[in-house]
Amino acid sequence: MTYINLNSKNLRKFCEDIFIKSGYSKEESFDITDVLLTADLYGIESHGVQRLIRYYNAMKDGYIVPNAKCEAVFQTPISAVFDAPRSMGQIVAKKGMNLAIDMAKKQGIGAVCIKNSNHYGIAGYYTKMAADEDMLGICMTNTEAIMIPTNGKKAMLGTSPIAVCMPADPVNFWFDAATTVITRGKLEVYRKKGLPLPHGWVADENGQDCDDAERVLKNIIRKLGGGIFPLGGFSEITGSHKGYGLGIIVELFTSVFAGGTNSAHVSNSGNADTSFSFWAIDYGIFGNKKEIKTRMSTLLQELRDSPKANGCDRIYTHGEKELISATQKIKDGIPVNNKTLEEMKMIGDELGISFNDYFTL
Amino acid sequence: MTYINLNSKNLRKFCEDIFIKSGYSKEESFDITDVLLTADLYGIESHGVQRLIRYYNAMKDGYIVPNAKCEAVFQTPISAVFDAPRSMGQIVAKKGMNLAIDMAKKQGIGAVCIKNSNHYGIAGYYTKMAADEDMLGICMTNTEAIMIPTNGKKAMLGTSPIAVCMPADPVNFWFDAATTVITRGKLEVYRKKGLPLPHGWVADENGQDCDDAERVLKNIIRKLGGGIFPLGGFSEITGSHKGYGLGIIVELFTSVFAGGTNSAHVSNSGNADTSFSFWAIDYGIFGNKKEIKTRMSTLLQELRDSPKANGCDRIYTHGEKELISATQKIKDGIPVNNKTLEEMKMIGDELGISFNDYFTL
Repeated sequence: MTYINLNSKNLRKFCEDIFIKSGYSKEESFDITDVLLTADLYGIESHGVQRLIRYYNAMKDGYIVPNAKCEAVFQTPISAVFDAPRSMGQIVAKKGMNLAIDMAKKQGIGAVCIKNSNHYGIAGYYTKMAADEDMLGICMTNTEAIMIPTNGKKAMLGTSPIAVCMPADPVNFWFDAATTVITRGKLEVYRKKGLPLPHGWVADENGQDCDDAERVLKNIIRKLGGGIFPLGGFSEITGSHKGYGLGIIVELFTSVFAGGTNSAHVSNSGNADTSFSFWAIDYGIFGNKKEIKTRMSTLLQELRDSPKANGCDRIYTHGEKELISATQKIKDGIPVNNKTLEEMKMIGDELGISFNDYFTL
Repeated sequence: MTYINLNSKNLRKFCEDIFIKSGYSKEESFDITDVLLTADLYGIESHGVQRLIRYYNAMKDGYIVPNAKCEAVFQTPISAVFDAPRSMGQIVAKKGMNLAIDMAKKQGIGAVCIKNSNHYGIAGYYTKMAADEDMLGICMTNTEAIMIPTNGKKAMLGTSPIAVCMPADPVNFWFDAATTVITRGKLEVYRKKGLPLPHGWVADENGQDCDDAERVLKNIIRKLGGGIFPLGGFSEITGSHKGYGLGIIVELFTSVFAGGTNSAHVSNSGNADTSFSFWAIDYGIFGNKKEIKTRMSTLLQELRDSPKANGCDRIYTHGEKELISATQKIKDGIPVNNKTLEEMKMIGDELGISFNDYFTL
């Protein structure tokens, strides 16, 4: 797999035009693209433009349609649940978090669930929206099942990411993590490189620790059993039951509250039936916001300044690496792999958009 | 270390009388004891009557006093922050969760933070209070620092437990887990047994993975460096940064919101300066409660019924093991170790309470 760096502005324009040609408004196309590009800029390639082909195919097959409805099925002054079949995840997700923020501005807290939507990109994009309004943001999504419960051998829960963003100086606390040990993207990288997997990452079809990425990925695709272990790994000795419990909590906050489909019943083709959860908390409900933010900033600075383990030269707080990555990629371009490049060209050709009008390689 | 089973009713009466003799009201003594005994019944020995000596010593030294103030320093219709210096953690914690529940009954959500208190036992006790009122309960506490950040070698965060309880049939989802791989109690057990520690549990004074419980515990007590790894273990390969991030989130919801002392500055003697966070969410803010509870029950049942890994005969959901333990211990008694027995006798003697009036050994 080879990489070429693409100018981020041009890449943004190209993606926006793809979505405009697919029936989305300028503003919607900007929103979808902004979520994708933020992932790439943050160094989360798995959720960036390499997903374009999946969105494009879902749009072609009619699983994602422009102007999909997003209807409120339940609402209170601090909460709402929406049903959004065949919607583009990013569009309804931004609406969901914006509504949560509006509620939090009035009531202190807002919580919005959405069901029956599609993949929405990185959960952390939406928590940053809350932080940009000087609020604490929390976001979760369920996904197609890939986590096996502790002592199990069948994937029953999603990667179940939890994202939390809290304003702080000089850099926000921006946490976005699957409650599985790793995500599927890591498996795919190890398979490509032909490397054995580290201990405690994935289970084979018998629920046993396995180092063979090829076998496990085949099993996952064919639903033959096995999957990724919860954060904490293979056994309770290393805390497997904790990651498993966090995965259940994410399912509770998404599909259980929203009335959507459990990860175990989310399909890997066709309608994605994904459920989201968005929380905005005006942290001023706990006192003077400036003081609270200062305390958070101090906590993070103390962590960064604390003594380093032998052999380590830096302690990061969450969100630092992503900002470093974004600064560098805005300057040097976003690395896009050859497979994704081919897909972009093909999509462009089908939609009458010439790849070469945007990029000089 | 040997164990003797004590009748749970007699043990309850004994503990209550200890607290009454120490200046607490009948109702307060019941409350403190109920938290301790629930831990023992659930099989969480580290947080049960073996802690009696710590509470007793803190009371004797004046770090915990009866009638300690618990003053509101900030309040909104959905939130409150209290300052509770020298308070018995269990007493103010129950007040905190009860207030959160009252707020949730009126507004849908209640969030209460308390600062400057003392150890409050198991976080999961308070989430169960919310579930008993048919609400979702969430509870967190900071503690003396024992978690080292990823790439660090100095303990900067607490064990940072997160507890979540959601009503379900036939058994509630009851999750109560440190965001460290293990708790200090486990280290002490391995030291007593002279066993090498599993890989990925603790760091020595240089921040390196270490299997020597004796050395690490000495370092922790003398604050020479090292500590317990975050959930996810030693390195980012196994998700160390995720547990570390969850630890920061707990610190945010406790000391940062409450205006209390960070775990890194909480002392291991004298005033504990502990901060708590209690959340009650009336999950009816997301729709019909009966339907939501049924969905949660179905999710948990599907997990329990899912195929077992080779060599495993059961998949648990969180809270099942604790109920099994409680049923058995109510019948057979609570196992109390010889050291704790001696401490109980000593405390009884000092307070004029005869151990033999309660137990026939």
